[in-house]
Amino acid sequence: MPTTIARTDLDNIIEALKRVLDEQNFSRAVKVFESLEPADMAEVFDELDESQQVALLRTLPSGESADILEELNDEDVADLVALISDEELARIVDEMEPDKAADLLGDVHPRRVETLLADLNDEEELRPLLIHADDSAGGLMTTDFLALRRRMTAAEAIQAMRDWSPTENEFYYLFVVDAHGLLKGVLDLRRLIIADPQTQLQNIMTVDPHFIRAGADQEAAAELMARYDLLALPVVDEKDKLLGIITIDDVVDVLEEEATEDYIRLGGAEPLTRPYRSSSIFSMMRKRFGWLLLLFVTGTLTGSVMRIFQGSIDPAVMTSLAIFVPLLIGTGGNAGSQTTATIIRAVSTGDIDWHDALSVWWKEARVGLLLGAGMAIAGFLRSITWVDDPNMALTVSLAIVGIVFWATSTGAVLPLIAVRLGVDPTVVSGPVMSTLVDATGLFIYFSLARLILQI
Amino acid sequence: MPTTIARTDLDNIIEALKRVLDEQNFSRAVKVFESLEPADMAEVFDELDESQQVALLRTLPSGESADILEELNDEDVADLVALISDEELARIVDEMEPDKAADLLGDVHPRRVETLLADLNDEEELRPLLIHADDSAGGLMTTDFLALRRRMTAAEAIQAMRDWSPTENEFYYLFVVDAHGLLKGVLDLRRLIIADPQTQLQNIMTVDPHFIRAGADQEAAAELMARYDLLALPVVDEKDKLLGIITIDDVVDVLEEEATEDYIRLGGAEPLTRPYRSSSIFSMMRKRFGWLLLLFVTGTLTGSVMRIFQGSIDPAVMTSLAIFVPLLIGTGGNAGSQTTATIIRAVSTGDIDWHDALSVWWKEARVGLLLGAGMAIAGFLRSITWVDDPNMALTVSLAIVGIVFWATSTGAVLPLIAVRLGVDPTVVSGPVMSTLVDATGLFIYFSLARLILQI
Repeated sequence: MPTTIARTDLDNIIEALKRVLDEQNFSRAVKVFESLEPADMAEVFDELDESQQVALLRTLPSGESADILEELNDEDVADLVALISDEELARIVDEMEPDKAADLLGDVHPRRVETLLADLNDEEELRPLLIHADDSAGGLMTTDFLALRRRMTAAEAIQAMRDWSPTENEFYYLFVVDAHGLLKGVLDLRRLIIADPQTQLQNIMTVDPHFIRAGADQEAAAELMARYDLLALPVVDEKDKLLGIITIDDVVDVLEEEATEDYIRLGGAEPLTRPYRSSSIFSMMRKRFGWLLLLFVTGTLTGSVMRIFQGSIDPAVMTSLAIFVPLLIGTGGNAGSQTTATIIRAVSTGDIDWHDALSVWWKEARVGLLLGAGMAIAGFLRSITWVDDPNMALTVSLAIVGIVFWATSTGAVLPLIAVRLGVDPTVVSGPVMSTLVDATGLFIYFSLARLILQI
Repeated sequence: MPTTIARTDLDNIIEALKRVLDEQNFSRAVKVFESLEPADMAEVFDELDESQQVALLRTLPSGESADILEELNDEDVADLVALISDEELARIVDEMEPDKAADLLGDVHPRRVETLLADLNDEEELRPLLIHADDSAGGLMTTDFLALRRRMTAAEAIQAMRDWSPTENEFYYLFVVDAHGLLKGVLDLRRLIIADPQTQLQNIMTVDPHFIRAGADQEAAAELMARYDLLALPVVDEKDKLLGIITIDDVVDVLEEEATEDYIRLGGAEPLTRPYRSSSIFSMMRKRFGWLLLLFVTGTLTGSVMRIFQGSIDPAVMTSLAIFVPLLIGTGGNAGSQTTATIIRAVSTGDIDWHDALSVWWKEARVGLLLGAGMAIAGFLRSITWVDDPNMALTVSLAIVGIVFWATSTGAVLPLIAVRLGVDPTVVSGPVMSTLVDATGLFIYFSLARLILQI
């Protein structure tokens, strides 16, 4: 009994497929693909040369080609789509789920989209989807759903399902609308099955279902579905007219995609648009260089602070003071990023928002003082063993308290300001944090040194 | 038509509820809870005093109390459970979903668990769940499922569903087993509805369904379900006997929980066990202090490196060199964490594993050289304007190339070594990375300075 195909099995399939394709044995290659599930098909497909990929898209049954294009990432799809003819593409797009087809058309030149739409059987289904942004609820929904009426009986609803019988999608909620298409209720398939066949749907449907507006962010849709354990979420326009359905499988993808984005950005880079193994080193460099340079430029402020004090502090003392610089900056940076990560995650799970800025700051300020006090002891001990001077050790300890307090305060407030300004808090926090905390930290340290060491 | 209850509405409900509870008007409070969905009930409940919470758990219908305990986090549940009597607890646990009930019992003293199990109606359903680890597939599954037989007809299966009719859980896949309880197939509810009532299940079921072993990690279950768009996943023992079902709503929770954990750890702290707003400052300090101290201790290596060179370099030159220290360390740390975040995310989405270590290193090494070359130009320009000395600028630029190359190499290989050793790569990467990159970076910088400046 097979479960997921293991990594090594997939590698073997890829090897075998490459041999078969080298021999131009396309009918065998098609058989291999037909035996796989969509996610595995796409992974195998992704390992082939572009010319082999194009040849396969032309040869495979359009259902399989559609499955593959649905699973590949957007950039790869855009590249491939440019290489096949309008008729071939239209044949494949007709088999794709409407939401995925709309995403594909979103990356195609507007003039070509018009030609393609004219060639499609499902033009009417697809056209309304093209007006929604990719990352909105409307961009995530599919129009391939069955809407029922309140006075239908359970038996009639089941007959309607038989007649409709979509090949791929499995919807486990059915939606009930009135004569104007306004959403009136949601019908759980399990309740439909066990209901008396003559019952009207209005007696077994749930009224006041959860819904989302087409313009809302896709993350909001994902959170709503996660919070209330929904398998499908109706998308409506401003007049509550039912436009489409978001299904749980798409939401799982959104959650993974957003988690990746947040994670990589916290690391100070931009997310890759392709899987790691197939990303080129130049595209990887492009995703990172901008941030690295920006952080370098803002980081030069630390040097400026040191230059200011350098003029007025004796070189021998300055050299002793310099020993602690990496440690102090590092501790400030660590305390700041601990806070920032906690706050950003609490914001994205809806736990706090910018209205809470003051209470969040007050909490983090106290945590910062506690942490700073603890770290100051460690700093004193380390300092007194390195430089046998109690005043120096006092300078280092007090600097740690100040720096950690400042870092947790900044780390708490900055992400909330970013949220208020409508900017991604993860993106802003890196450079602004490091500039503020590093440079200000050095300023605190050298000022304390001047005061305590009387230099 | 209501959608999610907005934050402000929930705040109003909480205010009203507190007033009602102060007046000891419990019947009104019960009505408020009965009008809410589980996730909202738990959020409101979480804001009340402990004494009010205990009083409510005693007063609410056990179904509502069960819903609340299912949604609260484990630590809060453990605290509450200690305050209510065995009979009251058993009454509530009987209404909980078996997987959630097993999680609750996992945090209760073993002697009390035996007393409770004796009081339960569902003892037989619950006992087998207690042997599985919380974060394994077995710990995530529920035993509340309907297993059918191959030779049953569609009409008989529908009748079995009517008889079973679980109140809360909605399962949209049904599973088919043989006389020994071995998993034989999965039945899609939609196909059951549209099938001829006299068809045997073996003709409409999918054979060879995806499954997972009870001992597998819960993340593996989540990935399998995300990859193949499954709404339910059967859990089997080593002999393929069907033990339970994992449902998609639990997987969505796992994905969010794991994303939070990864994110906070990348920030260098431990995830909070309670929501941010209700975490105490002492518990927050505890989650962070250990890491901060560890990073401080490993960070002292930077000071040791500086002390070594301090003895042999003239203080005036050392002071000039020191200006660039924060900038160089910062750039190395940034380049390293960019790489680490990318690699860890690629590992956790299954894109690469430790077998790829060599090819990953080779890729990152080249990216590191490209980035280093770019940053070296920036470094040269900044340096020549600060200290008017081409040799100094050369030292800084070459140090940047070396440090960035070393940082991307270390950042690529370390997480993969951690994976190989079975350690969470996010946890290891922070301290080890910062030690290796910071201290080694300074060593590279000062060695180059000695060589080029001939000091």
